[in-house]
Amino acid sequence: MKISIHIISILLFTILSCKDNTDVAVNADDRQKGGHPNLILTQQSVLNIQSQLGEVPLFDKTLKQVKITVNTAIKAGIDVPIPKDMAGGYTHTQHKANYVNMQKAGVLFQILGDETYAIYIRDMLLEYAKIFPTLGRHPQERSYARGKFFWQCLNDSNWLTYTSQAYDCIYDWLPKEQTEYLNKTLFRPYADFLSVETPQYFNRIHNHSTWGNVAVGMIGLVMDDEELVNRALYGLKKADIDLEVKDNDGGFIYDKDGKAGFLANLDSPFSPDGFYTEGPYYQRYAMYPFMIFAQALQQKKPELKIFEYKNGVLLKAVNALLNLTDANGAFFPLNDGQKGMSYYTSSLVSAVDIAYFFGNKQPELLSIAKLQNKVQLDATGLAVAVGLRDEKEKPFVKQSIELSDGANGDEGAVGILRYNDANTTTGLVMKYTGQGLSHGHYDKLSFSLYENGDEVIQDYGLARFVNVEQKNGGGYLKENKTFAKQTIAHNTVIQNETSHFNGDFKTGSKFHSKKYLFDTTNKSFQIMSAKEDNAYPGTNFHRTMVMIKDVEFDKPYVVDVFKITSNRLHQYDLPYYYFGQIISTSFSTEAPQKLSALGTQNGYQHLWKTSESKAELESIQFTWMNNRIFYSITSATNKDDTAILARIGAKDPEFNLRRDPSLILRKNNTKSALFATIIEAHGTYNPVNEKANDAYSKFESIKILQNTDDYTALEFKMKSGITKKLILSNVNASKEAKHKLKLDANTYQWTGAYYFK
Amino acid sequence: MKISIHIISILLFTILSCKDNTDVAVNADDRQKGGHPNLILTQQSVLNIQSQLGEVPLFDKTLKQVKITVNTAIKAGIDVPIPKDMAGGYTHTQHKANYVNMQKAGVLFQILGDETYAIYIRDMLLEYAKIFPTLGRHPQERSYARGKFFWQCLNDSNWLTYTSQAYDCIYDWLPKEQTEYLNKTLFRPYADFLSVETPQYFNRIHNHSTWGNVAVGMIGLVMDDEELVNRALYGLKKADIDLEVKDNDGGFIYDKDGKAGFLANLDSPFSPDGFYTEGPYYQRYAMYPFMIFAQALQQKKPELKIFEYKNGVLLKAVNALLNLTDANGAFFPLNDGQKGMSYYTSSLVSAVDIAYFFGNKQPELLSIAKLQNKVQLDATGLAVAVGLRDEKEKPFVKQSIELSDGANGDEGAVGILRYNDANTTTGLVMKYTGQGLSHGHYDKLSFSLYENGDEVIQDYGLARFVNVEQKNGGGYLKENKTFAKQTIAHNTVIQNETSHFNGDFKTGSKFHSKKYLFDTTNKSFQIMSAKEDNAYPGTNFHRTMVMIKDVEFDKPYVVDVFKITSNRLHQYDLPYYYFGQIISTSFSTEAPQKLSALGTQNGYQHLWKTSESKAELESIQFTWMNNRIFYSITSATNKDDTAILARIGAKDPEFNLRRDPSLILRKNNTKSALFATIIEAHGTYNPVNEKANDAYSKFESIKILQNTDDYTALEFKMKSGITKKLILSNVNASKEAKHKLKLDANTYQWTGAYYFK
Repeated sequence: MKISIHIISILLFTILSCKDNTDVAVNADDRQKGGHPNLILTQQSVLNIQSQLGEVPLFDKTLKQVKITVNTAIKAGIDVPIPKDMAGGYTHTQHKANYVNMQKAGVLFQILGDETYAIYIRDMLLEYAKIFPTLGRHPQERSYARGKFFWQCLNDSNWLTYTSQAYDCIYDWLPKEQTEYLNKTLFRPYADFLSVETPQYFNRIHNHSTWGNVAVGMIGLVMDDEELVNRALYGLKKADIDLEVKDNDGGFIYDKDGKAGFLANLDSPFSPDGFYTEGPYYQRYAMYPFMIFAQALQQKKPELKIFEYKNGVLLKAVNALLNLTDANGAFFPLNDGQKGMSYYTSSLVSAVDIAYFFGNKQPELLSIAKLQNKVQLDATGLAVAVGLRDEKEKPFVKQSIELSDGANGDEGAVGILRYNDANTTTGLVMKYTGQGLSHGHYDKLSFSLYENGDEVIQDYGLARFVNVEQKNGGGYLKENKTFAKQTIAHNTVIQNETSHFNGDFKTGSKFHSKKYLFDTTNKSFQIMSAKEDNAYPGTNFHRTMVMIKDVEFDKPYVVDVFKITSNRLHQYDLPYYYFGQIISTSFSTEAPQKLSALGTQNGYQHLWKTSESKAELESIQFTWMNNRIFYSITSATNKDDTAILARIGAKDPEFNLRRDPSLILRKNNTKSALFATIIEAHGTYNPVNEKANDAYSKFESIKILQNTDDYTALEFKMKSGITKKLILSNVNASKEAKHKLKLDANTYQWTGAYYFK
Repeated sequence: MKISIHIISILLFTILSCKDNTDVAVNADDRQKGGHPNLILTQQSVLNIQSQLGEVPLFDKTLKQVKITVNTAIKAGIDVPIPKDMAGGYTHTQHKANYVNMQKAGVLFQILGDETYAIYIRDMLLEYAKIFPTLGRHPQERSYARGKFFWQCLNDSNWLTYTSQAYDCIYDWLPKEQTEYLNKTLFRPYADFLSVETPQYFNRIHNHSTWGNVAVGMIGLVMDDEELVNRALYGLKKADIDLEVKDNDGGFIYDKDGKAGFLANLDSPFSPDGFYTEGPYYQRYAMYPFMIFAQALQQKKPELKIFEYKNGVLLKAVNALLNLTDANGAFFPLNDGQKGMSYYTSSLVSAVDIAYFFGNKQPELLSIAKLQNKVQLDATGLAVAVGLRDEKEKPFVKQSIELSDGANGDEGAVGILRYNDANTTTGLVMKYTGQGLSHGHYDKLSFSLYENGDEVIQDYGLARFVNVEQKNGGGYLKENKTFAKQTIAHNTVIQNETSHFNGDFKTGSKFHSKKYLFDTTNKSFQIMSAKEDNAYPGTNFHRTMVMIKDVEFDKPYVVDVFKITSNRLHQYDLPYYYFGQIISTSFSTEAPQKLSALGTQNGYQHLWKTSESKAELESIQFTWMNNRIFYSITSATNKDDTAILARIGAKDPEFNLRRDPSLILRKNNTKSALFATIIEAHGTYNPVNEKANDAYSKFESIKILQNTDDYTALEFKMKSGITKKLILSNVNASKEAKHKLKLDANTYQWTGAYYFK
């Protein structure tokens, strides 16, 4: 194939295609012809891109950057080392760079027509084909599914997913003998290795398997190998795996229904709202294979209508993911999630571009692409760049939203309340989902609170330094299991110092929390509420969180009502993981001579108890300062309740955990109990003019007026003298239900799930 | 005085003054006439300002903002409460707001000619005159010099310094009976109260007294009361004060030479380089009274030539202060210093404007004023705003600099090494000064390290939440004395767990460290070195710090050589207060069951010992990550040395201290000792693409080849295989001196204080 033919084609194409020059990813002629590239780039989309070079700024800019990257790599020379290292190590990093650079080189070859890039890919692939047959499984033995070039098949699947695209770009350029050689020596055996030879990896409902499925499917599409494509879509046919076996993440290595493959991984971990049960961090990771394979399938198997599958769940997933971010675009670290990961990551660049292209070109997505400041170098990225050039973007405004969990959307949800104005961007995230597969945490009804992209009350996230080799080769640290996953690491109630479901994955996977109420129609009073009946047998949890914007307040405050019903006496702990420095406490704090751990197991062994005090009052207050903002927690207590100040870091000889603080409210020897708390951002400190504005909470107290099976009634007393009553119906969340409640001398009547005045 | 007269004057003046319309602060006619205003604003400068309104953007913008502020205050009404509260409390905050608003209102009255502002000042002053005679000293008894409107005379002096300016602005507008009434009832008695009635406050060499002097001097100038002006300039004449008495800060309440007053406070705490011995935080605080009174004196007593006093020390002081900042403009928190205080503070806006106006209009100052984004509303601010409008600014580039300490510049210094390029802005600050009066810390030869405006190795600063009422009324916390001032809170050597000078202020005040070498001519090898012979009798310290930029490295690394000579056995501790999370340690760390304090006194009681290990090697390494940057410390050790990991927070029941970590290198039972350490920023972590670049130190080891009275020879071994030798002459810092040293088989010859190859 001579490249100069392209030039004529460009001219022709430019004339013919000026009517709608971005909609070219799918083209019947291309498919029938079977000519490569036909996976992500197509012959026609390449022509279209070429015809617009120099005219679409963001596309041109991305292309220029990619060119610099790949030219640098080519100059450095081809390096295909014998696999040896863990993540973060030299051979791992080199193989990773290789597939990234090959994929980019393929795109450059197609768009720029410079054979240098094709030669680079060819020579690299020949090196891989040379070593592949000589390799056993990777020498590092840590994974349940050791790979070839990498310590785990997961990374090998990354390699194959990216490399398939590069291979597709040079397929027709290579002599037939060479493609036959590569297919036979490298690609087909590699696909078999990742699937039939590693069923415990390939056949799960898990992001790992999605990568495996897609790797096999992508190379199958390139080689027109229907067997591989079907294996990718539907899983291994007769895999003989013990259904009870778990992998080293604690996850089952097979779906409970016996389904497997790409489509099963779309059916089951995604809810109809596009929420991925593992959580946003892994959803982000899985979005690339999901979306890129969908794009390839749409190209080569349009009859599958993959973007319409399960009511368009892939497009909804992108929307869900964008909503699961703080004001800076960083994902909420629900379950195992590394903080700082954000929609600026490359998989989200692809996802946003693909979703824009195949999803009715929503202009809100353009504003995200604008922030990302790069595009995928194909028809989808071109469409986005054209949209931006033509100033079609609209702001992506994140509103309050409830995202259901479970394949059918009936296994709980994540609720997000948001309030934005000139003073603040406040976000409150509550998790009342299912277990979330092997990356799930034991954190039923937990929450986290954000202001302006900063954490106010944090979710710890995972205990891992991804790709930092010194820290366990960049892999999960043992403290992820012993602390980060445990209930005490979260802002939810722990009974008797034991994690939810006793920290048992199998038990936790059987259950999910239940939505009770989510109503954000009134922006000044947004409410979400959920129940959990299985975390502790015989104990029922009902948590309601309200975000209230009072006209007298600069910012909204949060009311947290955690109702516990049980027939037996228990100890209940409710931690709030704040940040920063303590300014004042209503209870007297102590300074022990020696620090001891708060407990011996279930994560308690990792907390130093720095102070423990009796509440002494019926409403306690705790004020702290972080990021130059003052915050207070005001909470209804019994005088015998204790307030514990703790700090993470005990039993952590390698200093794997952050030394973050926590306020833990404890109720002892209680059957039923109610934690009623107000969380409030109320002032600022300016170290330049040394002014402390509103350093004091606006609340005097919070009082429990009544707490029965049917109703929970609270009174907030403000320092201004104003009081407010909040009454919650605990059993009927209907908007139409009429209620009547006697409190002391007064009778309150209202319609709907709550009363607030 | 009718305001409309002004309009005619403006027209006349505009015609007459267009030649040089900014140089009008000092005008002989004004002075002879004696007409008000003539303190900071003058009749002529007001006319000039009025003539340029609308034409000088930054001046106009500041004026607009000030107008909004004062109009809001006027709308809120006059509130002169009976004094009651500590700092941060209501009455304190209100009286503070009053003087700030009055000063601004005075300026607005003059510039805008709107009597509303004059009436506001008059009515407020009459309220003050009403309550003043009824007040004893402030009911809060904490200060050694309790004030009238505030808990300490210091704040009262603030009040009078600002209010004098407001009074000057309406002096001629007020009927003569009213000025006579105010002079007699409020101002003269107030000036006497702050001086003759409170000699232990007024007569010190201390920023407190400077405020006192200036308050009395400013009101003296307004009232043309020569007695007050002389009292301000030269102190109380026959004050009868016990020279040994100390105030509650630990400072002497009288100068050792018996001098006092404004000029004595210029003579003694300022070095010829303009460094103020209390440190930048208090220099910043004192700059306002120093500069504003200087401006007033230049106006009314030009024969004093105050800006030329002590070789122009006031102008040098502004330059010194701007150099004592990190990349964000925040002051290095040497001695008692609150972090975050920066050259954006209003006293620096005044200082920069006044220094520009009276100091040859240095265009570098304009770039600071541009960042400050506001100006002083007088002739100095107008000149700055005009300079900015006319684009005359040049960058203020902070270079390496040594700022001497002591009235004659012979009492040690602060050394700052800086390196700036595209990769980094690195700053290294070493303190080898005198004690620094009552706000001094016991931290001889301590240092701190900055990168891009962030602290890498921190100076703790002060233990205080300024103006946060809940924290001891916003005043100093007891932990300031028990921890923040102690040696162990700093990055310097502590002998036998006892602070320098045994933490005794009188002893510490007798001595200062000695400069040895400061050479920054070679930007790739900058060196500073100093000695301390008095911190521990019988023990001599010599610390040398070098900032080396190796072409193979992205950023400079720091070599820290701390040589100790003693005739007796001691324990030596050297802490490094890093931030962030530990990535790896060459020594094995432990996880104790219980945490104990590191010691019982001198600050050690506030540190939890989280790990203690034998070095086991002759070169240990400690790697951590903060702000997504990797850092390593590589240090030469004896195998029996110990590495202690500590965290601040023990014995702190009110949580007044930050929970920051420290690595403490300990040498036991040693006479002479050498700590030789490399501190290195070597890599980055990106949580979005999850890449760890250069996560490992580039150094294999650091080795002590020789350490004698005359020479210290070190060898750095890099992982690349390269070795470097650094030889320091310990007794001869001359650039011309020729040296010759045998090390093993080789003889090294060189000229100058060091050899490096």
